[in-house]
Amino acid sequence: MRENASISRADLDAVLAAGFICHLGVVVDGTPMVVPTVYGATADTLYFHGSVASRSLSQDPAAEVCVTVTHVDGLVLARSVFEHGVNYRCAMIYGVPEVLTDEEKLEGLRVLSEQSAPGQWGYARKPNRKELAATALLALRLDETSVKISSGPPEDGDGPDGELGLWAGNVPMRVVYDAPVPAPDLAPGIGMPTHIGALAST
Amino acid sequence: MRENASISRADLDAVLAAGFICHLGVVVDGTPMVVPTVYGATADTLYFHGSVASRSLSQDPAAEVCVTVTHVDGLVLARSVFEHGVNYRCAMIYGVPEVLTDEEKLEGLRVLSEQSAPGQWGYARKPNRKELAATALLALRLDETSVKISSGPPEDGDGPDGELGLWAGNVPMRVVYDAPVPAPDLAPGIGMPTHIGALAST
Repeated sequence: MRENASISRADLDAVLAAGFICHLGVVVDGTPMVVPTVYGATADTLYFHGSVASRSLSQDPAAEVCVTVTHVDGLVLARSVFEHGVNYRCAMIYGVPEVLTDEEKLEGLRVLSEQSAPGQWGYARKPNRKELAATALLALRLDETSVKISSGPPEDGDGPDGELGLWAGNVPMRVVYDAPVPAPDLAPGIGMPTHIGALAST
Repeated sequence: MRENASISRADLDAVLAAGFICHLGVVVDGTPMVVPTVYGATADTLYFHGSVASRSLSQDPAAEVCVTVTHVDGLVLARSVFEHGVNYRCAMIYGVPEVLTDEEKLEGLRVLSEQSAPGQWGYARKPNRKELAATALLALRLDETSVKISSGPPEDGDGPDGELGLWAGNVPMRVVYDAPVPAPDLAPGIGMPTHIGALAST
């Protein structure tokens, strides 16, 4: 099988470490709602921004959410349309998130910040009391999780479709960072810190 | 405001046209579930694969879904952590999807296929009757939609944080296609068609 469910903890950690945007699913008045949001993960907890989730949780504090992190790694172009597919890595986390206190938020925001822009937490001005109060931050334990990974070439070459004389293969896809763009109102003489320049080479 | 809700139909079309992976939200036994899946869009309909949705719809044929398409365009690195953000384009579509008949599936699969790999529908072997029957394909009208677009530089340079002497700006991100990788079992002498090679230059 090209597509595999993984129960490896290392696979979960790797999928979560490879990005910083998740899709958060909540139920609002019986209707599903899926919103992209920023996350950061530690060994046992996923922190994420979630004003939508906060609203749904204010209705029902025990409301379950589903957080899904997906990386698209490429197209799988087979001989037959039916065997076409996508190479990807996906982690799903289920649970009832905890709404963080202002003190807990600081650590959560540090995790979030360091996941998307390592080094930035120590560089930028940290949140003050008012900003922390205005931040909706949630924590979800990495207890109920599911990981799926699909990789490799198409696999319809060994049947009759292999005789069609058609090209088959996969087209890798990846996310790149371009050169940082200084803010138009950046005061002259402020150099770009190394940790920001380093993003573009990842 | 850096972040804007858009009611422009052109914005919706552009966000949908810019990708082929969505996150599908369904409610299964009261719990939200968010799964990545492949989609294709026409002027009025979003087609998507959805065995999970099909299962939830078999429980409740009138069950609403939420399909979210997100493109991450970059990091916004402000002077303060609080003003950090992400540039992105996001479309959300709500509604009760229609489960397609086998005949309708063929058109839906064409739309899906052409969205992710233009030219491939005319090149690869099309689905036969058995394959169509084994395909779970859904259609969602583009009636209830929401688009959000966030772009541009950070905007905390005009307050006291502008005096901190910190670098601020944004780091663009984008998806690239690498050179196609022929399947290991590809018979010698089968050249790569132009439409597949063209993906890597997009």
